Amino acid sequence: MTPETPAVGATPPTAQGTRLDPWLDAYADRAHSMRASEIRALFAVANRPEVVSLAGGMPYLEGLPLGVLGELSQRLVATRGTTALQYGSAQGDETLREQILDVMHLEGIDAHPDDVVVTTGSQQALDLVTRIFVNPGDVVVAEAPTYVGALGVFRAAQADVVHVPLDADGLIPAALEETLTALARAGRRVKLLYTVPNFHNPAGVTLSASRRPQILEIAHRFGVLVLEDNPYGLLGFEGDPIPALRSLDADGVVYLGSFSKTFAPGYRVGWAVAPHAVREKLVLASESAILCPSSASQLAISAYLSTCDWRGQIKTFRELYRERRDAMVGALAEHLPSATWTVPDGGFYTWVKLPAGLDAKAMLPRAVTARVAYVPGTAFYADGQGGDHMRLSYCFPTPDRIREGVRRLAGVVAGESELVSLFGVSDPHGPLGVQQPGPDLA
Amino acid sequence: MTPETPAVGATPPTAQGTRLDPWLDAYADRAHSMRASEIRALFAVANRPEVVSLAGGMPYLEGLPLGVLGELSQRLVATRGTTALQYGSAQGDETLREQILDVMHLEGIDAHPDDVVVTTGSQQALDLVTRIFVNPGDVVVAEAPTYVGALGVFRAAQADVVHVPLDADGLIPAALEETLTALARAGRRVKLLYTVPNFHNPAGVTLSASRRPQILEIAHRFGVLVLEDNPYGLLGFEGDPIPALRSLDADGVVYLGSFSKTFAPGYRVGWAVAPHAVREKLVLASESAILCPSSASQLAISAYLSTCDWRGQIKTFRELYRERRDAMVGALAEHLPSATWTVPDGGFYTWVKLPAGLDAKAMLPRAVTARVAYVPGTAFYADGQGGDHMRLSYCFPTPDRIREGVRRLAGVVAGESELVSLFGVSDPHGPLGVQQPGPDLA
Repeated sequence: MTPETPAVGATPPTAQGTRLDPWLDAYADRAHSMRASEIRALFAVANRPEVVSLAGGMPYLEGLPLGVLGELSQRLVATRGTTALQYGSAQGDETLREQILDVMHLEGIDAHPDDVVVTTGSQQALDLVTRIFVNPGDVVVAEAPTYVGALGVFRAAQADVVHVPLDADGLIPAALEETLTALARAGRRVKLLYTVPNFHNPAGVTLSASRRPQILEIAHRFGVLVLEDNPYGLLGFEGDPIPALRSLDADGVVYLGSFSKTFAPGYRVGWAVAPHAVREKLVLASESAILCPSSASQLAISAYLSTCDWRGQIKTFRELYRERRDAMVGALAEHLPSATWTVPDGGFYTWVKLPAGLDAKAMLPRAVTARVAYVPGTAFYADGQGGDHMRLSYCFPTPDRIREGVRRLAGVVAGESELVSLFGVSDPHGPLGVQQPGPDLA
Repeated sequence: MTPETPAVGATPPTAQGTRLDPWLDAYADRAHSMRASEIRALFAVANRPEVVSLAGGMPYLEGLPLGVLGELSQRLVATRGTTALQYGSAQGDETLREQILDVMHLEGIDAHPDDVVVTTGSQQALDLVTRIFVNPGDVVVAEAPTYVGALGVFRAAQADVVHVPLDADGLIPAALEETLTALARAGRRVKLLYTVPNFHNPAGVTLSASRRPQILEIAHRFGVLVLEDNPYGLLGFEGDPIPALRSLDADGVVYLGSFSKTFAPGYRVGWAVAPHAVREKLVLASESAILCPSSASQLAISAYLSTCDWRGQIKTFRELYRERRDAMVGALAEHLPSATWTVPDGGFYTWVKLPAGLDAKAMLPRAVTARVAYVPGTAFYADGQGGDHMRLSYCFPTPDRIREGVRRLAGVVAGESELVSLFGVSDPHGPLGVQQPGPDLA
């Protein structure tokens, strides 16, 4: 056949007229769920310095000893450059995996370095675990609300997310049992229970110690693997950390950890701890996805852990974030008494319920105009719930800025409430929504 | 329901007796294709210093100015740490994306920074493009042989890989046309043509300039997106680079680039250049997979590009690898005249055809015993072909070690040939195979 002969079944992209994307027909099914958020443009505005962003989950890094870290980097590249700049093992650097055991030991986890897989942030571990377990149409059970970045992963895997409510003590065991029973009766295949037990993103609540064995028992009874996502566990404001779910059940839990909140996210180093056979799959999946995690990043973190007072640094962060939490809840009490909110014992977020009739999504453009930003509650549900909530982050702005942000927000809420009392409730089915996590929402 | 009530549809993992992996029934379909290679253990041995490894694709980093790079790292963290250690955009640092345009300009590519997506090595870009386009059962067309790491990605996506032969001038246009015609007649959906046009891994050949428009025309006519994987393009030993496929067709090609071979793999920084709508999907897919690429890695490479003579460094690498290529082909001519091999004009690999009757896979354990390692040809095919070939890498060992390695290999081949002449051909269906790329095979 010569190039001039029309090919059988040919669909030349340019022959399709005015269509904007010539590859539209070629995408995989999973790609059709990948949609840019309509509020992206708003968040671009929200990143301007005059806007107080209570939206992002960026840790505050100015407290880090950057001079010391710079010297560590210099020494690492100059003296160990042929290792730090080379490919490494897909599972991750062995010394770092041993150090990760020390970190996890603070939450009662007893593991072996072989159980640990280092990933490009714990987000990659979340993605890999999901790819290993979830077929299209499988069910993933998650808290209501849940982490927006997990929803993006589950959507890309074409999972059906079923929410289970939480309260001030975290995921409610009876509700979990009821949901799993109903799903089993309906013949649905539940693959994962995804949970953020500590200082929940976005809800700010913590799964109580007494509920932890109950949750594990229920998951075990229904044959559901627990995916414990714990980026904030060491950032508690009072007392010692509650033992991790993984510390109570080594076979039924895949644990996800991260240096992004307790040290720095820019290295993109997280990890998973998984039962033996699952860990083997994780290594193979990671190798296929990225070959290996960055040696430079891993060795930089390893050097930090071995030469700096990382426990002291975490204590510094805890105090910093407690002060900001106090500024946030103080300002809410002062300026927004008509709302209700969770008072987190750690982490980055409070979950605010708006006065009746207000819709956080519809209100966001006006808030940004008033130079304050937040994430509407709908972002944290797979099913459109959450319009009456918003997530406020106190991790990045200073206490003064937090107070100013809440003050501005209160003005927007007051104006919106007045509109609602005049014209009825705002449209809860407006066009805005967060379909993807976005690094600024992490 | 109380915790004591037996749950409907419960499958408690521990109730399944002696089975080693309690989660075996829970894996997604795609996970069943993830298998550890049986030759892993051999490669672990092959990494011992007494073994000459002609197996790995690790670049030789001792030529890098590590002292200067260390100082750059120090300054970066000390003065820009709150950016370098923070989350960044999912698409990648804007300055780096502009600098990547300068790199690609050397191969005739004219693009806009908005077209570039920075990824965790180009492996991640390969994985993301595949996830965006390939449904289970879709066809990916690839050269015979092809990059082992791409086969791992296509397998994880449950694609059917159909090979098209190459010769000394790369992928054969008539063979591509014939294959696409047959696939169209059979009603198969071909989503991607995956090609490594320059200094092919593993074949060592380069797609000639005259064939490039022909390949593009055929792909276009059949509506197949071209995935151009080009980690080695700037590492040619003679003359200027041949213009990239992407330089001839901006709408029909997704181009993958990498700093792993021209600078250093330890940062894990690669990129994709894609048509507008595909690029948007890529950013969303990357955000879901890892939130964002490492700021620390990106800014380190950006600082290197803006303050060091990176073009001069690439020239140094070219000369270094040319000397090693010469050592390799010289030693093959001297010690293994019964084999045939490609003489690459650049890159890291030569593709060796063994004397009749020998099987590279069956021979590998004996080679490792003789303290030399290579990758059997079967690793580079989806369908079990390639047992009569091996890939030899000359990138990492010094010329003297390369010569010593080939000498040892010649001894193994001689012994194996004697066995074959006495007892007949070795078993081409032995148990050994490479099912996963492995960072050491990159």
